[in-house]
Amino acid sequence: MTDPVTALREILGPKGWLSGTDAEPYQRDWLNRYGVAPLGVARPANTAEVAAVVKACRMAGLAVIPQGGNTGLCGGAVADRASAVIVSLSRMTAIGEPDPESGSIAVDAGVVLAALHDMLEPHGLMFPMHLGAEGSARIGGLIGTNAGGSQAFRYGMMQDLVLGLEIVTPDGAMWDGLRAVQKDNAGYQLRKLFCGAEGTLGIVTRAVLRLYPTPKQQASALLVMSDFAAAVSFGTYLRGEAGEFLAGLEFFSDVGLTLALKHLPDLAYQLETRGDVYLLVELASGSARVPLDEILASALEWGMEEGLVVDGALANSGAQRAQFWRLREEQPEGQRLEGEQLKHDISVPPGAIARFIETGAEICDDILPGVRINPFGHLGDGNIHYNVSPPEGRADFDGKAGQFAEALAALATEMGGSFAAEHGLGRAKIAMAERNRSSVERELMARLKGAFDPQGTMNPGVLVRIAE
Amino acid sequence: MTDPVTALREILGPKGWLSGTDAEPYQRDWLNRYGVAPLGVARPANTAEVAAVVKACRMAGLAVIPQGGNTGLCGGAVADRASAVIVSLSRMTAIGEPDPESGSIAVDAGVVLAALHDMLEPHGLMFPMHLGAEGSARIGGLIGTNAGGSQAFRYGMMQDLVLGLEIVTPDGAMWDGLRAVQKDNAGYQLRKLFCGAEGTLGIVTRAVLRLYPTPKQQASALLVMSDFAAAVSFGTYLRGEAGEFLAGLEFFSDVGLTLALKHLPDLAYQLETRGDVYLLVELASGSARVPLDEILASALEWGMEEGLVVDGALANSGAQRAQFWRLREEQPEGQRLEGEQLKHDISVPPGAIARFIETGAEICDDILPGVRINPFGHLGDGNIHYNVSPPEGRADFDGKAGQFAEALAALATEMGGSFAAEHGLGRAKIAMAERNRSSVERELMARLKGAFDPQGTMNPGVLVRIAE
Repeated sequence: MTDPVTALREILGPKGWLSGTDAEPYQRDWLNRYGVAPLGVARPANTAEVAAVVKACRMAGLAVIPQGGNTGLCGGAVADRASAVIVSLSRMTAIGEPDPESGSIAVDAGVVLAALHDMLEPHGLMFPMHLGAEGSARIGGLIGTNAGGSQAFRYGMMQDLVLGLEIVTPDGAMWDGLRAVQKDNAGYQLRKLFCGAEGTLGIVTRAVLRLYPTPKQQASALLVMSDFAAAVSFGTYLRGEAGEFLAGLEFFSDVGLTLALKHLPDLAYQLETRGDVYLLVELASGSARVPLDEILASALEWGMEEGLVVDGALANSGAQRAQFWRLREEQPEGQRLEGEQLKHDISVPPGAIARFIETGAEICDDILPGVRINPFGHLGDGNIHYNVSPPEGRADFDGKAGQFAEALAALATEMGGSFAAEHGLGRAKIAMAERNRSSVERELMARLKGAFDPQGTMNPGVLVRIAE
Repeated sequence: MTDPVTALREILGPKGWLSGTDAEPYQRDWLNRYGVAPLGVARPANTAEVAAVVKACRMAGLAVIPQGGNTGLCGGAVADRASAVIVSLSRMTAIGEPDPESGSIAVDAGVVLAALHDMLEPHGLMFPMHLGAEGSARIGGLIGTNAGGSQAFRYGMMQDLVLGLEIVTPDGAMWDGLRAVQKDNAGYQLRKLFCGAEGTLGIVTRAVLRLYPTPKQQASALLVMSDFAAAVSFGTYLRGEAGEFLAGLEFFSDVGLTLALKHLPDLAYQLETRGDVYLLVELASGSARVPLDEILASALEWGMEEGLVVDGALANSGAQRAQFWRLREEQPEGQRLEGEQLKHDISVPPGAIARFIETGAEICDDILPGVRINPFGHLGDGNIHYNVSPPEGRADFDGKAGQFAEALAALATEMGGSFAAEHGLGRAKIAMAERNRSSVERELMARLKGAFDPQGTMNPGVLVRIAE
């Protein structure tokens, strides 16, 4: 039998195989918590090479770890053993012609999200997926983790935006499911199943994505809300009065704003009032005939009359709109620069956001008094990045990180929500899933994994734990 | 061992078990093409009874056939053998309180769609699923077949509207996945997988559905288009200029209008011009400040200037709007009353609708000259109900029904679409799927079925064929 590295080199050519120091940039995850040195990194140039690599690895008993932009937060795209090959899709970056009449486009798995945005702009089309990592995250990884982001409440998550898929299966076969229609009920919804499967059932090599026309006008406002309950009530009002225009409904706290302003000196907060909670509201319309500013101003007025909105400003320019968004987008960076932090990716029914944040704060304060709660996220779909910083003047969490994570996961579960809203399970949250999800659910998932990948070749140890 | 009927009677009580003539109303499918007399019909009162029935059937080697409103068009909800029990969910009809802040509601699988619509109306909320059978179709069946309908292009199919599910598995276990959040990436997307599984992986017993606020105003128009290509171009224009308002974009042909007017004497067509193609456009908005009529009128004007729209009328009252919609909704009934017919549930990328209809017409005319093509459906998602009537003066298809179906399925497949867009495969289209989908795809589906239902208890012979 040929030595596996020789076989892989032969399949991939000199540009397609990295080992030693060349492989190091692929080794660790984004948060530098997971990843050991793999046998090497395969960088296939096309689907046939992906399939050949999977076959060769399977034959040699090597684990296959698909990797996109490696921006995931749960360690799902790096190796847990030396007998593994990372398959990076970074050389497969072809983008097809957008089809404006059908609202779709075919792209390779290695396309960077921001590159797709840029490519579409002159066509007057958009792919409505926006998240912090869009400058590095690749389509295949976004599909594998079923990414959500700030517009998911309106346009859906990746699973709602994927029309068709091409997959290399754990057998090294190629499934051509590159259809370009929303309605396809000819059997099980495989295209949905592969979204969020984190590379454990196969490798996404290509996709047909749904596109939308770019809006012709926008109206944005930054609001100071009286409290989280007020933010929820105002969100409900907006969905009723301006629901079809809602393109952004993001919240952050004064804890987060304080940290961002402290650590990012070029960041500006231009309102006169501060409060506990801030809401970034963005409306967008494809019609030039809609009085969008007036609709937003009128909603603000209602919110002020009701005592929900304390202060607010409509963006009067694109520059000001960008400033408002930066306040929200720099929340993770501000907190990171403050030092140690805990990230929790929670979702609850949107009506329960305030209750979760308040109950969660009590629980956290019981675990470590004075701990700083810094929740921010997506009001429209109840997705709370419930981050925590140590008490003022303290550098760590007194070894209690796991206690916070478990208590908040249990609370989200109890409230009909999720402890893994948009980041997935990866390696980081498998044990948490085992504790918070029923044995029936875990059993169904184990059977799925066993049916598609009986040898356990694909991303072992990620999403679901199977006896090896 | 207890006789299975005795065991089932004991589980279900006297109201819960039907046999003999009492079971007959459940025996045949909607189009009266499928169904043999089962051992009996179980009508469980709750999830525990469903689970007990599944366990008892499994132990006795009986097939379990889940049935909702039995309005499916592919024969997926009736028995193919005497050793089967139909499980009708028709007694499980509880509807929970709607949650306007979270935009969700929990309902039993047996709830009739129209009953849910009626219940929500006074709350100012809507469940955006509309289809011809809504007066009989039940939520569980709609989930099992992943129903689409006329608003799918905007709000999605059932898989996009289901937040959480409760399932009785083929083992008779209960999976409580009744979470109420859009973002839940804690493992494989089981909730999506059960949508469209046609009861072959388990029985849907309860669901959490997504709700939207009811719009405050609507504007509707009936348009005569110069041809199908014009309808497609106009649809693209509308998505760009009024996309966020689009709540209906339905088309039908002059063949269909002629049949409907012929057979339904109370139906009125009030425009002066006739054409080959008609478009029903509906805009809706949650904001009273949007000049919706003006936006629609302006789009019409553009369409006329471009030569796409030949004639058109805006509905000036709710009564006229209802008349416009009836013209579209009576398409199936008009054709049914004409006599023999063939139904084909096609989807293609929306930009390819005109090409499909025209190429399909040539193919059909080659098979049986003079055959009447009557396509109608959903322009926004490319879903064409490509129905066919025999040539004028002829009562049948000369034994060529299968040839039409196969030729049109092949054409849809070739064009990146589906031959089972929103009705599913059921028993009717399994062979078609075997011919039009790759062996890799069929193999993945067979593995899925085998993993969830190794004994083949659930709805055998539906969706996927497994050696028994």
